[in-house]
Amino acid sequence: MLTKSSSLMRLVGELKKLPGIGERTALRLAFHLLKSPRNMTALSESLCEVRDRVHPCSTCFAITENDPCSICSGNRDAGIICVVENSQDLMALERSNAYQGVYHVLEGAISPLSGIGPSDLRIAELVERIKTGSVHEVVIATNFTVEGEATALYLTRILKPAGVKISRLAHGIPLGSDIEFVDAATVQWALQGRNEL
Amino acid sequence: MLTKSSSLMRLVGELKKLPGIGERTALRLAFHLLKSPRNMTALSESLCEVRDRVHPCSTCFAITENDPCSICSGNRDAGIICVVENSQDLMALERSNAYQGVYHVLEGAISPLSGIGPSDLRIAELVERIKTGSVHEVVIATNFTVEGEATALYLTRILKPAGVKISRLAHGIPLGSDIEFVDAATVQWALQGRNEL
Repeated sequence: MLTKSSSLMRLVGELKKLPGIGERTALRLAFHLLKSPRNMTALSESLCEVRDRVHPCSTCFAITENDPCSICSGNRDAGIICVVENSQDLMALERSNAYQGVYHVLEGAISPLSGIGPSDLRIAELVERIKTGSVHEVVIATNFTVEGEATALYLTRILKPAGVKISRLAHGIPLGSDIEFVDAATVQWALQGRNEL
Repeated sequence: MLTKSSSLMRLVGELKKLPGIGERTALRLAFHLLKSPRNMTALSESLCEVRDRVHPCSTCFAITENDPCSICSGNRDAGIICVVENSQDLMALERSNAYQGVYHVLEGAISPLSGIGPSDLRIAELVERIKTGSVHEVVIATNFTVEGEATALYLTRILKPAGVKISRLAHGIPLGSDIEFVDAATVQWALQGRNEL
């Protein structure tokens, strides 16, 4: 049988480092992989490929394999920059198919409790892009959490002097929601931001 | 941004092949790994190591790095063989520290619905071990499922003629259980198998 120092146990240890994967799940995944050496090879090669190929875009800091990324180098409106916390948020916005501008990934949000200040984010690079480019609007799409809101507030303060229009994603009732079950703060936002029909 | 054919999406595809991991979890794991190239390397190397080193023991078919495995080659009672469905079950029995004999891993259980018959399992090898060795008892520790019970029944029938003692793990109330909540069949087994104090 396998000892604690075996390669399988080392694999279990590596799998346990992943978020939401504990000892038992890691063991189950390892035994599943063990059944298929071809899958193990594919996963291993895939990991190396991602490690070697994927990096942040030098312009917008979205993860990409080419530099500049397909959005920065594509046929998009460079006059409007959407600021997001990370590349996952960018992907969610792209899925909506409702945005034709470019992006700027901050790589996080201001969080004094975690020791993350403005200098730890790509804010200086954003300011630089606005200074040099022909940007007329910045859409702040940080998350609607304490950290995201703090970041939005900070960005508004430092970008206002540059004279660009600054906007924020709309607050409101999500699609398909029953108003009865929506939290009071969201209903308040939806009322304040009501649109004339 | 990344296209559907990017290495990250291929990694997501590989991760999705794992049990219990869907599209969203795979994406979350991939982005987590992306943050740490060192973890990606370690996981990749670990996978290759397991693929290259771990194989079934030629005697008992438990997964091992050495052949014969540490149990088969260790100071264990070779006169008693515990038959399990897979190496995970073997590990559970080893954790109990209550067994000093050797094992035999069937690599599955008889399951006509999945097209798994006795010839797909390591049953011939078990019969061979019993014929040639000085085995006096076979403990059947297949799972207490329909497939496991069918396998136990089959093994009993084909091993009886060899003249070895055949036993099965005891049915009963699990430790720490409230009898109120134990299923009727288990209570029935516990009553039938009651022990005199």
